[in-house]
Amino acid sequence: MLSYTIFGESHGPAIGVTLTGVPPGLAVDEGFIAAEMARRAPGNSPLSTARREADVPRILSGVFEGRTTGAPLCAVIENTNTRSGDYADLRVCPRPSHGDYAGFVASKGCLDYRGGGHFSGRLTAPLVFAGAVAKLLLRERGVWVSACISMAGGVKDPSPEELEAVILAAKRDQDSVGGTITCVVNGLPPGLGAPDIDCNVEGIFARHLFAVPAVKGVAFGAGFALARMRGSEANDPFYMDGGTVRTRTNHAGGVNGGITNGMPVTFEVVIRPTPSIAKEQDSVNLATGEDCKLAIHGRHDPCILPRAVVVIEAAAALAACEVWGGGAAAAR
Amino acid sequence: MLSYTIFGESHGPAIGVTLTGVPPGLAVDEGFIAAEMARRAPGNSPLSTARREADVPRILSGVFEGRTTGAPLCAVIENTNTRSGDYADLRVCPRPSHGDYAGFVASKGCLDYRGGGHFSGRLTAPLVFAGAVAKLLLRERGVWVSACISMAGGVKDPSPEELEAVILAAKRDQDSVGGTITCVVNGLPPGLGAPDIDCNVEGIFARHLFAVPAVKGVAFGAGFALARMRGSEANDPFYMDGGTVRTRTNHAGGVNGGITNGMPVTFEVVIRPTPSIAKEQDSVNLATGEDCKLAIHGRHDPCILPRAVVVIEAAAALAACEVWGGGAAAAR
Amino acid sequence: MLSYTIFGESHGPAIGVTLTGVPPGLAVDEGFIAAEMARRAPGNSPLSTARREADVPRILSGVFEGRTTGAPLCAVIENTNTRSGDYADLRVCPRPSHGDYAGFVASKGCLDYRGGGHFSGRLTAPLVFAGAVAKLLLRERGVWVSACISMAGGVKDPSPEELEAVILAAKRDQDSVGGTITCVVNGLPPGLGAPDIDCNVEGIFARHLFAVPAVKGVAFGAGFALARMRGSEANDPFYMDGGTVRTRTNHAGGVNGGITNGMPVTFEVVIRPTPSIAKEQDSVNLATGEDCKLAIHGRHDPCILPRAVVVIEAAAALAACEVWGGGAAAAR
Amino acid sequence: MLSYTIFGESHGPAIGVTLTGVPPGLAVDEGFIAAEMARRAPGNSPLSTARREADVPRILSGVFEGRTTGAPLCAVIENTNTRSGDYADLRVCPRPSHGDYAGFVASKGCLDYRGGGHFSGRLTAPLVFAGAVAKLLLRERGVWVSACISMAGGVKDPSPEELEAVILAAKRDQDSVGGTITCVVNGLPPGLGAPDIDCNVEGIFARHLFAVPAVKGVAFGAGFALARMRGSEANDPFYMDGGTVRTRTNHAGGVNGGITNGMPVTFEVVIRPTPSIAKEQDSVNLATGEDCKLAIHGRHDPCILPRAVVVIEAAAALAACEVWGGGAAAAR
Repeated sequence: MLSYTIFGESHGPAIGVTLTGVPPGLAVDEGFIAAEMARRAPGNSPLSTARREADVPRILSGVFEGRTTGAPLCAVIENTNTRSGDYADLRVCPRPSHGDYAGFVASKGCLDYRGGGHFSGRLTAPLVFAGAVAKLLLRERGVWVSACISMAGGVKDPSPEELEAVILAAKRDQDSVGGTITCVVNGLPPGLGAPDIDCNVEGIFARHLFAVPAVKGVAFGAGFALARMRGSEANDPFYMDGGTVRTRTNHAGGVNGGITNGMPVTFEVVIRPTPSIAKEQDSVNLATGEDCKLAIHGRHDPCILPRAVVVIEAAAALAACEVWGGGAAAAR
Repeated sequence: MLSYTIFGESHGPAIGVTLTGVPPGLAVDEGFIAAEMARRAPGNSPLSTARREADVPRILSGVFEGRTTGAPLCAVIENTNTRSGDYADLRVCPRPSHGDYAGFVASKGCLDYRGGGHFSGRLTAPLVFAGAVAKLLLRERGVWVSACISMAGGVKDPSPEELEAVILAAKRDQDSVGGTITCVVNGLPPGLGAPDIDCNVEGIFARHLFAVPAVKGVAFGAGFALARMRGSEANDPFYMDGGTVRTRTNHAGGVNGGITNGMPVTFEVVIRPTPSIAKEQDSVNLATGEDCKLAIHGRHDPCILPRAVVVIEAAAALAACEVWGGGAAAAR
Repeated sequence: MLSYTIFGESHGPAIGVTLTGVPPGLAVDEGFIAAEMARRAPGNSPLSTARREADVPRILSGVFEGRTTGAPLCAVIENTNTRSGDYADLRVCPRPSHGDYAGFVASKGCLDYRGGGHFSGRLTAPLVFAGAVAKLLLRERGVWVSACISMAGGVKDPSPEELEAVILAAKRDQDSVGGTITCVVNGLPPGLGAPDIDCNVEGIFARHLFAVPAVKGVAFGAGFALARMRGSEANDPFYMDGGTVRTRTNHAGGVNGGITNGMPVTFEVVIRPTPSIAKEQDSVNLATGEDCKLAIHGRHDPCILPRAVVVIEAAAALAACEVWGGGAAAAR
Repeated sequence: MLSYTIFGESHGPAIGVTLTGVPPGLAVDEGFIAAEMARRAPGNSPLSTARREADVPRILSGVFEGRTTGAPLCAVIENTNTRSGDYADLRVCPRPSHGDYAGFVASKGCLDYRGGGHFSGRLTAPLVFAGAVAKLLLRERGVWVSACISMAGGVKDPSPEELEAVILAAKRDQDSVGGTITCVVNGLPPGLGAPDIDCNVEGIFARHLFAVPAVKGVAFGAGFALARMRGSEANDPFYMDGGTVRTRTNHAGGVNGGITNGMPVTFEVVIRPTPSIAKEQDSVNLATGEDCKLAIHGRHDPCILPRAVVVIEAAAALAACEVWGGGAAAAR
């Protein structure tokens, strides 16, 4: 079973990912991987952080003559553009709603606080690499993952102009905005998964998605709107489409009883507003035990939604691989 | 680490649960367990199914002289009140939005379709048992789990009268209604969890919660409302409360960066309307491959929210035990 | 992936096993299961304990109309023939080389000490049940598991008469004897497994085998004799046999680099002499903290080798299922 | 829980290891780590391969200001001294008893065959690094791991001179020799582990040990000699030593019923003779399907025992960390 471990800190020597359970024989399409990496790379627009890094993953293992071998695949991205001085205050003064304080306690005070350390959004770069490998695997099976921004700062299904306006307004106010991303996974056959805790399709997707920083909610199909529906409205009527069983609606998001039903798996995630904002905020000094004020300098996105789309797709692709399991098809 | 496996089918000989990783020395408070079981038992009100069963779990192992031994704990509930005749059509004609069709494919046609089989809501009885054991464990550590209905059929925070009205209206229409349940876990110390996929607190809770039938979405803290907020509004400012770090708001639901921050862990789940409704629905005949009409008889709840509250608490308690891990405290 | 959890105590209400990951569609051959259970049942000969129990497993779940459904399969064996009085001393006075003392510490004093509790050899009954299910699964794939006694009390490859003589001599002396069991797994295709820790074929077998009480060593192929060999002698030369790659010898026991090579997987386990002997032994009183003498009454086998053969086969069959994984073939 | 994933191939860009579950706050003693690496480094004596590499692990993550943070720790060793030309024949002609053929099948023909690829003994370098971290962790808890060569080429407990003679004789004959390594883990408290499959102390050690290349057997305490003993001889009598329960002998190797009993955990592993020998051997040509002759050139040890001692210690240290679990003590 494909699984991954992300390692690294924002201002350490390097970040990366170790993938295990990669089926052998998969052609590693480096052009595709680079294109996926570019989708989340910072520094591409006035809307995102000014930090620019090449973010070219170096594959250390598990690939031979352009194909996966089945052995663990480790890819590393060197950290080259770090300005640690920006973050010196964070050692004792945690940023509200960031992982600083919780991480300080969890690490018994040994936290690498520089630039968010292991909690940094930068760690989504190796996740996108892993997701790209997963997408290559799914592509061989006819599975496609596609996400888009479905809300930004309260604006539903924003056009590019609306999105830019929302983000620039937040930037102007030294603030940030959240939103939702909607994702569709097409091509998963019916019958994958189980109702039980470790095999439940919704649970598997949720586990992968909540590992993405800033995701605070996950809902399948009609999601929280189901709380306002009656059964007669929410139920998805079956019909035969040629020899295939399909449903006329997909309020269940392609999953019944924890198992795929052959319809697209659809879900929505909520992305909280970036906690790093330039406005002064209330915090505490962990060294003195007193309240304090915190102004974050550094370089931060006022809205991570544009860069998060490919990250959500990556998590969904990794989840879809886990749901499908085995991986035998990859090496045909 | 406490973990559980639920087994059984609605109309099989028995249902039950096997718990492993139960710390030794925990006093098994049978009165408390019985009270928890009673909270989800059917047949207690005009609002729920007429099926009545004693649902008294028989503990087969792992308990000696009233205390857990640390060995696997298996508890079994015999099935005594089954009327399989009610469900004969379901063998070939799956109920919309129930697990029948997906389960048929997953089982390669060997599904125990009677009364929903392993997908039946009845399987939440052993889950409540497991949750009761988890609550006893958490109680020793000063952790409390509490849930309530926060929406029913579109009515927010319904009073008992409103809830009854919503449910009886649905029943009258041979229909069902969904809603949301909000849950609070108090007493988890800061520093539990990690940002990584297998240790992320939100991911652990979500995995447990999506294993509950009918849960289609999970959101922490302010949840999907974060999509309409700015960072300055969503961020939870820190302050010192005596020697303790606290936050003035809890929009993050007690979790930052996948790690507990010492505030209550709060979340909301959406419960879809029961798919089993008496109204005639469109389905397909899996034997003939033709479209068909389906009218479900059997005995079903028009709304499972009242009985689901303790089930959500059970899943949350089991998740909290996994988050805390170890369990050493239990046997002091 | 097929996995199992054994539960129960020797003198509790019941013992049993919960199997998860059983592929759907497997015909449950109850005659075969009963025959396997009979192979380890006590009371069949003057060589084994006088305790007699029917040991008929009752399948509670996961089987419908004679076939597995893929849902968790729980089977329970009631305990009917218990004489707890025999074991009263063991509460405070642990038997040398039995699990009593280690279990007492692990359970923080809450051990079910009666008859060995969860450590009793009786717990191998549900293991044999689980192994029988695994064998049925393997049979569909053309895999066969077969074990035999290769040493008893120092006698190599004993004939039935020699075996009886060895055991009766030990019984006469109020003592017990150990030995080795050799096992062959035929039919596993080449290419299963990986060199890595969690997928290594030898590691998987060893993990299953060391979970059998009394197993203290596991060695593959030529085993410890390799310590006296040179490479030129130990290496298994390859040759083509029709279109199949085979080796002329099998000193590696069918595994190279943690992966099956298509030759039979062979291994030997050492079974320690039963620790429960009638001779007086030195022990300690855990209540008083003083040395004491212990004479064990109860009913015990002077040699468990004859009954352990099917238990080792069961563990090997479960390991082979894990090695093969997936299980898709079962339901063809 | 401390766990590790080793990645890399003998002639790829780099090899390394990703450790997860490392407790925070552990001082990373680089001098100790370097000393451990030196114990297995090649090229230090006329007895081992002529390949010389610095083998200095570069820590990429999980360490900040000299202490572990609790985040995943990745360490990488660059491959600098590779002569792939030596191994060209191995692409189609597998070495007897090496992982070449099994790996070829497992990888569906996409094996990195150069120098043994992922199966190379070189992969034990990152294992020693991981073991050194584990030892630092155990040291804080008062646990010590120590191994030695207990047999080489049939010579029991060889003196340095005898060991050298055995190895040089094999080298002269273009052959190799196997042996056994005995290991002691001192300081594990009683009560760790459980009889069950995933928590059994012997099973955990065996799983770690069989992941070491060339290990073909693992036996605890008196090991296979138990097959010749009676219970009265094999049983370890208890006695009180001050307030501590101890046993007069340790034939059980510190484990009863899968749980530590407070005595040293002792075991022996058999190390097969290196399969890479210079003598001509029979093999098959996987491209043509015909038998062939194979002469291995390359650089190989006639006996890996001297370098394997620290590798076995590493695996044992990692197993001991898993047995102890939690890791809370590390950061006091």
